Amino acid sequence: MSNRKAVVLLSGGLDSAVTLYLAKSKGFRCHCLVFDYHQRHRREIKSARSIARKAGCRFNIERISLPRHGCALLDAHLNIPQARLRSLQRSTHVPVTYVPARNIIFLSFALSFAETEKAGAIFIGAHCEDYSGYPDCRPEFYRAFQKVINIGTKAGVEKKGIRVVTPLIHKNKAEIIRLGLKLGTPLNLTWSCYEGGKSPCGKCESCYWRAKGFREAGIRDPLVDCRL
Amino acid sequence: MSNRKAVVLLSGGLDSAVTLYLAKSKGFRCHCLVFDYHQRHRREIKSARSIARKAGCRFNIERISLPRHGCALLDAHLNIPQARLRSLQRSTHVPVTYVPARNIIFLSFALSFAETEKAGAIFIGAHCEDYSGYPDCRPEFYRAFQKVINIGTKAGVEKKGIRVVTPLIHKNKAEIIRLGLKLGTPLNLTWSCYEGGKSPCGKCESCYWRAKGFREAGIRDPLVDCRL
Repeated sequence: MSNRKAVVLLSGGLDSAVTLYLAKSKGFRCHCLVFDYHQRHRREIKSARSIARKAGCRFNIERISLPRHGCALLDAHLNIPQARLRSLQRSTHVPVTYVPARNIIFLSFALSFAETEKAGAIFIGAHCEDYSGYPDCRPEFYRAFQKVINIGTKAGVEKKGIRVVTPLIHKNKAEIIRLGLKLGTPLNLTWSCYEGGKSPCGKCESCYWRAKGFREAGIRDPLVDCRL
Repeated sequence: MSNRKAVVLLSGGLDSAVTLYLAKSKGFRCHCLVFDYHQRHRREIKSARSIARKAGCRFNIERISLPRHGCALLDAHLNIPQARLRSLQRSTHVPVTYVPARNIIFLSFALSFAETEKAGAIFIGAHCEDYSGYPDCRPEFYRAFQKVINIGTKAGVEKKGIRVVTPLIHKNKAEIIRLGLKLGTPLNLTWSCYEGGKSPCGKCESCYWRAKGFREAGIRDPLVDCRL
């Protein structure tokens, strides 16, 4: 990949932070895109901003409005599900925290940005092992989206090549955490909890996977010790 | 298609207005999505609103921010190209009025909306004959995006089937205008001109194609007689 300019989708969570540091370690000049989509809390946006600044990267905060009902991350009337039940079930159905077409929207904006800025890559920290219930975290989805880029954009038609890069796609949380540490990712600045309290709730699915990851990596979570 | 609920992308132009009336004629209950993306003028948003109201359809105006430089529809420092030169060239290169990833972003929002509202179809008035320079107006692009829906959404995984419908894709402007008349589309409410004056400039590419379409259809444009 000769073009070393990249757009990085940054959520404020562990995965996207490690992805940013990985892109930087590969020599990419990164521009971060952060989305304010009226998510349940703004804590993760604050985290994303801190991470981008720490990494010395420029960032944009895109404000968008998504339909809210039926999605626990957007609709304050719905409860965030507790982790234990779902983790025991190893459910294959799509969880209530799924936001319709969210990653497709994020990628579309990143694509518009990449095309305008003549960036050669879009980095996204999706991974399929832990979150197997999300259809937009699977490799086949990213392959399909890559085809949309190749066919449906000026950059694609002119063979300028914007690649969607998913470096964590086959990694589990423990591997991501180890990689993050190795790359000097400020894990203490990341936020994973679905709730927006002062400290992580320790009960939601996202807290569960984070704590499990740190435990399996044999590392203490610098943010908080989520005991589950 | 058993689900008769549809999301229709409405720009305020001829094509999307005819598409809306076509969807209605097929028995779809239509919800229109209109985008305010800081385009060069707001005239088309006003038109879209009038058309949706006339059709008796609900509509949302989504406000989004797109990168502006390099695109003549967004960047006020760039001139809208005159039609004559390009029409004579029958150029195959992507025109300066191309907005990076615009249709991909519009479809992504429509998809999020369709999934939340349990709609079975997304209608978009793209067509490839006149605007052969736009990569996101070609049938192969819509086939690729359909695959993204099938693989990357809850609706797709659960086989609920959201279909992207492009009923005008192989029609030319004259055919679209005739169809629009037949369906009772309020063509007088539509706006095609890339400039935002009180009346169409008659010089830009969009005015050129509109005038050519009306001429070939043997119908007088109810909005204005654009002589080219």
